[in-house]
Amino acid sequence: MAPLDPEADAEALHAVYGDPEVMAWWTRPATASVAGTRRLLAEESERRGAALWTVRAGNGTVVGVAGLLGAVEIPGLTWILARHAWGQGFATEAAAAVVEHAFAHDGLERVEAWVEADNARSLAVCRRLGMVRRGMLAQHYAHREGPHEVVVWGLANPRKEQNPPPVLHVEPMLPVADVAATLEVLRSVLSARVAFSVGDPVEVAGLVLGPWSVGPSIRIVTAPRSQSAPVTLALDVGTGLDDLYRRAADSGVGRVEPPIEQPWGVREFVFQLPEGHRLVFGAPA
Amino acid sequence: MAPLDPEADAEALHAVYGDPEVMAWWTRPATASVAGTRRLLAEESERRGAALWTVRAGNGTVVGVAGLLGAVEIPGLTWILARHAWGQGFATEAAAAVVEHAFAHDGLERVEAWVEADNARSLAVCRRLGMVRRGMLAQHYAHREGPHEVVVWGLANPRKEQNPPPVLHVEPMLPVADVAATLEVLRSVLSARVAFSVGDPVEVAGLVLGPWSVGPSIRIVTAPRSQSAPVTLALDVGTGLDDLYRRAADSGVGRVEPPIEQPWGVREFVFQLPEGHRLVFGAPA
Repeated sequence: MAPLDPEADAEALHAVYGDPEVMAWWTRPATASVAGTRRLLAEESERRGAALWTVRAGNGTVVGVAGLLGAVEIPGLTWILARHAWGQGFATEAAAAVVEHAFAHDGLERVEAWVEADNARSLAVCRRLGMVRRGMLAQHYAHREGPHEVVVWGLANPRKEQNPPPVLHVEPMLPVADVAATLEVLRSVLSARVAFSVGDPVEVAGLVLGPWSVGPSIRIVTAPRSQSAPVTLALDVGTGLDDLYRRAADSGVGRVEPPIEQPWGVREFVFQLPEGHRLVFGAPA
Repeated sequence: MAPLDPEADAEALHAVYGDPEVMAWWTRPATASVAGTRRLLAEESERRGAALWTVRAGNGTVVGVAGLLGAVEIPGLTWILARHAWGQGFATEAAAAVVEHAFAHDGLERVEAWVEADNARSLAVCRRLGMVRRGMLAQHYAHREGPHEVVVWGLANPRKEQNPPPVLHVEPMLPVADVAATLEVLRSVLSARVAFSVGDPVEVAGLVLGPWSVGPSIRIVTAPRSQSAPVTLALDVGTGLDDLYRRAADSGVGRVEPPIEQPWGVREFVFQLPEGHRLVFGAPA
């Protein structure tokens, strides 16, 4: 791989960055001209910490770019290929070379890759690189209609000692007057699963927000109303904010404030339970 | 694969269940006799929903067992092989056949596999099956000295429509009088990373408990002491409970109660912040 030269490589790479089908997965829309591609490449290259290389086919033709993103807190892998070069292993080979450089040469402790949850090709690249799925978050690119869900993959440098994080999971507790009633409302609004419940009537119950044994979760515990001080939870949502809002509003429980756009780029609504607990649902605006 | 017959297969399978090196990864210690293996196989087979098959080598010899665990809430894959049969692809082949049966024949919506975080061979099997890492939890087997960390893998039936869970992440908020001071204490006790902070002095900050962009997290927000009602958070810990206890006690902040064993099989200690927030750290006893 040769280091990317925005000036010299823009012409060849305009077939990549100028292609709307390729750029549908990208943070920015397709460029309109070679000059636009050149500007984009220059901007990406100049970000602090960025290290970008061209990806070449066997005959030496430039078919894409791979490297490390700049201006990110945790080093991030990036790759992009012309459509005609998809499905031939170029991305995996180039990304593996970037990882090797990042670990062996730069001595980085870890790299991440953020991949759209629907991008089957790039998800497969992450799996082939031996990356481990670390969780999900939501992003909204300006050229796309709404937010989308992103899978965050991580790979730790095997040459560096890793201290395993001591805490595996954090579960907030909501003290409520009637656990069974709260459980029923939250279960249906959040599409959650009751993982366990203790007592009859129920005194303590665990709610997992998803179909697996592990995942975002909330514990609901009995407390006299006088002692149940309001708790605020922020719930990150991807594509389903409006659907959640409707379900919360339709539950007829508590108080639901319609979605508003916050100055910090998040669209959110508050679902306030009768005890005063505030569930703040937010998605990228 | 032939269905497991505890009566007939115990003799051959005693080489598996009677081998301490194999059983080091298992929920129970090695059996002491063929009769013990027969009892274990009968018990595993009789659990509600269990479906177990023998795994055979090319020459017909029984080298292990694979199937679905019984008495679990979410269908769980299981496999075990004689040591001499490791590293030859038997586990992946058998587990893939079990998955195919579970999805095509039984019509299950999903299967999980719980694999010890140090069990590199079984983790690789999960990756080869295309399973997705869903999170971590801790378990303590009676025959092992302390708890260990487990990776929960999930695979959804591609033939069934999956409703993506709408909530990607839940982040509890801790209202405190001094965000910067709380941040500093929690950062060091929890080995956490400050993901963002707003204001000078800091008014809001996000703490991620681990080295990746996503993971268990807590948001710390400024609130006058009169309004900062105490919040309780349960923090699941794997192997590091005593270390966390020492770090919390050494912080000199708040009140730390020494670890106690709860009747429900959890060893836990409480770290109470000056505002009254209770961080309840727990690991399997």
